[in-house]
Order: sequence, then C-alpha cells, then structure tokens
Amino acid sequence: MSSAHTSSFAPLKNDTFLRACMRQATDYTPLWLMRQAGRYLPEYCATRTKAGSFMGLATNVDYATEVTLQPLARYPLDAAILFSDILTVPDAMGLGLSFALGEGPRFASPVRDEAAVAKLEVPDMDKLRYVTDAVTSIRKALNGRVPLIGFSGSPWTLACYMVEGKGSDDYRLVKTMLYSRPDLMHRMLQVNADAVAVYLNAQIDAGAQAVMIFDSWGGVLADGAFQPFSLAYTARVLAQLKRTGVDGQIVPRIVFTKGGGLWLSDMKALDCEVLGLDWTMNLGTARKIVGGDVGGPGKALQGNIDPNVLFAPPEAIRAEVARVLDSFGLPHTDRSIPGPTQIFNLGHGISQYTPPDNVAVLVEAVHTHSRGRRT
Amino acid sequence: MSSAHTSSFAPLKNDTFLRACMRQATDYTPLWLMRQAGRYLPEYCATRTKAGSFMGLATNVDYATEVTLQPLARYPLDAAILFSDILTVPDAMGLGLSFALGEGPRFASPVRDEAAVAKLEVPDMDKLRYVTDAVTSIRKALNGRVPLIGFSGSPWTLACYMVEGKGSDDYRLVKTMLYSRPDLMHRMLQVNADAVAVYLNAQIDAGAQAVMIFDSWGGVLADGAFQPFSLAYTARVLAQLKRTGVDGQIVPRIVFTKGGGLWLSDMKALDCEVLGLDWTMNLGTARKIVGGDVGGPGKALQGNIDPNVLFAPPEAIRAEVARVLDSFGLPHTDRSIPGPTQIFNLGHGISQYTPPDNVAVLVEAVHTHSRGRRT
Repeated sequence: MSSAHTSSFAPLKNDTFLRACMRQATDYTPLWLMRQAGRYLPEYCATRTKAGSFMGLATNVDYATEVTLQPLARYPLDAAILFSDILTVPDAMGLGLSFALGEGPRFASPVRDEAAVAKLEVPDMDKLRYVTDAVTSIRKALNGRVPLIGFSGSPWTLACYMVEGKGSDDYRLVKTMLYSRPDLMHRMLQVNADAVAVYLNAQIDAGAQAVMIFDSWGGVLADGAFQPFSLAYTARVLAQLKRTGVDGQIVPRIVFTKGGGLWLSDMKALDCEVLGLDWTMNLGTARKIVGGDVGGPGKALQGNIDPNVLFAPPEAIRAEVARVLDSFGLPHTDRSIPGPTQIFNLGHGISQYTPPDNVAVLVEAVHTHSRGRRT
Repeated sequence: MSSAHTSSFAPLKNDTFLRACMRQATDYTPLWLMRQAGRYLPEYCATRTKAGSFMGLATNVDYATEVTLQPLARYPLDAAILFSDILTVPDAMGLGLSFALGEGPRFASPVRDEAAVAKLEVPDMDKLRYVTDAVTSIRKALNGRVPLIGFSGSPWTLACYMVEGKGSDDYRLVKTMLYSRPDLMHRMLQVNADAVAVYLNAQIDAGAQAVMIFDSWGGVLADGAFQPFSLAYTARVLAQLKRTGVDGQIVPRIVFTKGGGLWLSDMKALDCEVLGLDWTMNLGTARKIVGGDVGGPGKALQGNIDPNVLFAPPEAIRAEVARVLDSFGLPHTDRSIPGPTQIFNLGHGISQYTPPDNVAVLVEAVHTHSRGRRT
C-alpha cells in the first residue's frame, strides 16, 4: 500500500484507547469488544445476507467497511477492529477456507504430513489485498473518530486449524504432530510466524493504528509446550513488526492468549505493549505480575469480563462491570509519566445471542464507573 | 450398605497410592489414569456392546465390575476407579439421563426456571444403589490388589449439565442463571452439594478407599465467580464427608478442577488431601503454592501429563513422562514424616483413540523413572 493512498487520513479525535495501550493516563477506561461487529447485531446479519457468505463479507471492501462501522453507530466504543477472520493467512497459503452456515471454519486441504508441511510458504500479500484494502477503506470511513485495530491469529492458533482442518475439542491431530514430529511443527510455526509478521506489517502500512495477535488456542497447550510452540513464535512475529504506522505514530501491539493467565510471567518478556486476558484471570493479580509501577515499564492489560454477563439484567451488568474495573484497581492519573492502565474488553468474543441493548448498558457502565473512580 | 457386606474385604497389597495421597514417602510415584476403563480398550467396547448402552454398563454390577478391572489386567496401575458417570446424581434427582451413541450425555428435563429449581432435592440413595453395589462388588473383585477410588461430579459441574441439559461450549444458559438469578443458582448448588456428600459417603460405606470430586467445569467460571459458585460448594461437600472407610482407614479426598491452576492459592484452604491438576499447570509451581514442606502440612498433587502425549512414539512418551516427573521435583524420602508427593495421572481423561500399547509404555516409564530418581 503506497503512502499516497494513506497520507490523507483524518486526524484522530479519540485517542483514549491508544493512550491506554501506551500506559498513559486517561480520563476514563477505554473499551472495545472482541467480535463487536458480529451476528448479535441485526444490521450485521442483514449485510451478511446481502454478501451471501462470511467470506463474501470479509473479501468485499465495502461490506467489510460497513460491518466494521456498525457497532460504532450504536455504541460509543473507543476503538474499531478490522472485520476479517483469523484464518485468512492459511487460506492465502492455499488451504481452501470455507464457512458452512451454522458451522465453524473448515480447510479443504489440512496440513498433516511432511510433504504438506514442506510445501508451506509465506503467501504473496497480493492474495490478502482484500484485507489491506479493507483496512484503508475502514480507516477512511472512520474519519478519525476512533483508532483502527488490525489483527491476525497467532502462529500456533493458525497451526491448530491448519492441522485439524476445523475446530477441535481435543486438538488430537495437532498435538500428535507436536509430540511425534516436533521438527515438522517447528517448520510450520516458522512459516506461520513470518507470514503473520508480513501480514500485520501490510495492515500497518494500510492504516492500522494498533495490531492484535489472537492466540486463541495457546491455552490448550501443556506447560512446557506453550513456551516453545506458542510463545516463542508470537515473539518471532513481534520482533518483525513495524513500530510506527503511516502517520508516524507508534503502533501498539496486543497479545491475547485465551487461557494464558498461568503464563503471565513468561509473557512479561514479550516485546509488546498490551496483554489481553480472559475472565479466569484476576486483573489485580495480573497487574502485580506484568502491569508495572507508575513511572516504570510494564504492560497495559486488556479485558476481561465474561461475555455471558451480557445475558443478565442491567443492574447485574453494572455490578459486574464495577467488579471488573475494581479488580484492576485505580489506574494512575499522572499524565506526565506512564503507569498501569486497563483497556476494558470481554474475555472472549461476544456471543451471537447477546441482546444489543445490554451492550449499551455495559458500554455506558464502563465509561461512567471508570470516570467516577478517577475524580 | 451394612458392615456385614463389607467386613470381608481382603487386606491391601499395594498401598502406594494411598500413602502418596497422605503425603507419605513411597518407593516410586504411583499412577492411575482418568477414564482408565474406557473406549480405548477393545475389551471395554466388547462389554459395552453386550450391555447395550453406557448406562446399561454403569447400572449392571457385573459389567461395572468387569470393566473397572480391565485396565488392571493390562497395566500395573496403582489404583482402580469405580466405573460410573459423574451425572448419576442428577439422574437420580429425576432429570432423565441418557447417552446417545457417539454423543455426550443429555438430560430429558433440564433445570431452567424457579419452579424446576424449587423441586430439586437430595435423592434417595436407593436410586443409586446400583453404584454402591458396584463399589462393593469391585472392591471384592480387586481382592486387595490396589485401592478403589469412588467419585462424583462437583456441585457446579452437575449444575452445568442440569441447566444446559447437555455439554456446552459457552455455558450460556447456566451462566445466565448465575448472573441473573444467583439465588436460584445458590439453591441448586446447595442441594447438589448435600446430595454429592450423601452419595460419596454411601460409596465410602460400600468400600471406597479414596474419593474424588471432579470439578470438570470449574475452569469455565470467571475469577470472582469460581470462588462463591464452585469452590464454596466443593468445600460444603468436603465438610460432610466421612473421614474413615469400612476398614477404619482414612479415606483421602481428591479435588480436581480442570482449568483451576490459577486458583490454587484459593484451593489451599480446602479440607482435602489431594489436588488434581491439568497439564497447563507447572507441577513445581503448584508444589510451591500448595505442596507444603517436608514435615509440615500441605496437599499431595495429582497429574498432569497431556493425554495427547499418548499418540507419540515410545521414546517421546518416555521423554514427556520424565519431564512431568522432573517438573514436580524430587519427592521426599523420609518415611517418618509427611512431605510433598505426586500421584502421576493424565491432566484429563484418556482419549478413546489412544493406542493401548502406548499406555503400557507410559505406565512403565512412570514406575521406572520415578524409582530411579529416588536412588
């Protein structure tokens, strides 16, 4: 993506999310929601019907732009996230991604033997042009309202799907390869890591203002396997990422390992700005391990309310929001130095069954309660 | 179960497992495998075919005895575990348990509203007579070879199935009740806890020499919800359990929370002898938190190899066994005082696809390697 395309982006009006990523004091706790553009919104379902399929939606720049902005029209969220899928990279590698209605993703050509692993290579980014074009289109459509987050699956999470061919409840095939042929697994993870790095850099060049690595399946690994097979390749991605975006601003890097709370001390060494957490991890404990001190280094924390809280009545949602904010403790307020910060989010993607009105209650509660705690 | 039935049990020949549960030094690390009597064994499948169904197997004393002993005929395991299901208690409450072939358990009458919760009560143990009769039959058939473990699902895990009606990948219905109507959830958990306590005491009276509470779904709860909705009711069960069995021996109590590694400090306060761990938790770290010192109090630890290791070749299985044993560190060897001990196990039930020969490799590796480390 040339800078000619991207030099005309509007100045950012709400930088609360980016400030919190950089551990800078903010007036309130910013929030966005994983999978905020999704099936719980009737307007999303309408666009998807027009597009014909999930990939029809993701590969069409206009549709991808439209659905990315839909949740922002309803709720005063503090960031937008590219509408896409974590499996676009292996699809570009030639594995043949498809989504049957009502089912999860599926690859026509899973990678299960030495020959299939040997054939893997970093795909030509032209095959992912639909993603980078969408990033630029969304960034323009946002018109500086909030920052745009780009993303990818982690090398290990991509490998899970590439070997299993679809979702799994035991990860038997991918773990069989890991324990039986660690050489093949390492080769696949190297290719994945380099591909994810090129892919995220292309998103940054196209206008992404932050990037997130979804290690959705890191938590299924055993202690002792997580470190060499997931964390090491997330680190390999991070080491290759551009540090500034098209407008010269720093691009914060977020790493989210679902079920990774036990490995926070290991993740402390990652060269990234933000760690995402699911709802099993106490935010106060996480802050002690990786949040750092006021004036010192550390990671911002993103999370971590249980998405199922959104099925409760408004007063219960407000109480749980307050509980999660309070579990993090008071964010620092000195704007002259960095310190512990939280970006509010769910601990996992929002459920398709969520009542949209309850999301409004949650967003309002986060903004109001977190503002009130700073005065 | 009268003591007339149970007074004739043979003396125990291999007490390694029970000693390790009580944090007493042993010559080697004892092991058993969660779901060791199961579908990976062709002889199990043959018996199940004769029985017609899973519940046909579990409710027939002779079949239940036969399949419980099958893995012991193949492998020198250090404990037997009652063949049954964690959902027998809600079935006895009238929810109508069934297992369709190739699917998980299903309840005909899930508990989803105030009226259904109000009707719940501790079931008459006569309805679970098939379980206690099986315990006595198995204990007799074991003839003192190894100890027999009885078990139940935890109050929270039972509640998950009782509300969802079947397995779930998001626990939406049970969590909706938890967050929307905590009063109903607490009432259900109280009944479950009291029922589980009566049930486990009946198993102890029938001859069980240790009991285990499977909190299989505790790990899906948010921090702050796990403690009041799962842990507190596991504690309520433990407080009601008999401390000695029919032969006057102490009956060790094992609590296993899948995905519970983050809450080990909370579980330290549980009145039980053993904590089970899945493969995500480092055993050395767990030992530091709850294992205790030589001569002081603490919990024995049970676990925690990834069952998928059993799909690797023998040399890889041996290497992973050594790694797991080494992660725990050296067990203490002074027989005059208690100290940190491990009971080797999988971190979850064995997969139905496991090659039986690989289980032999694992069992041999645990015994040999752990014996070698003590000399």
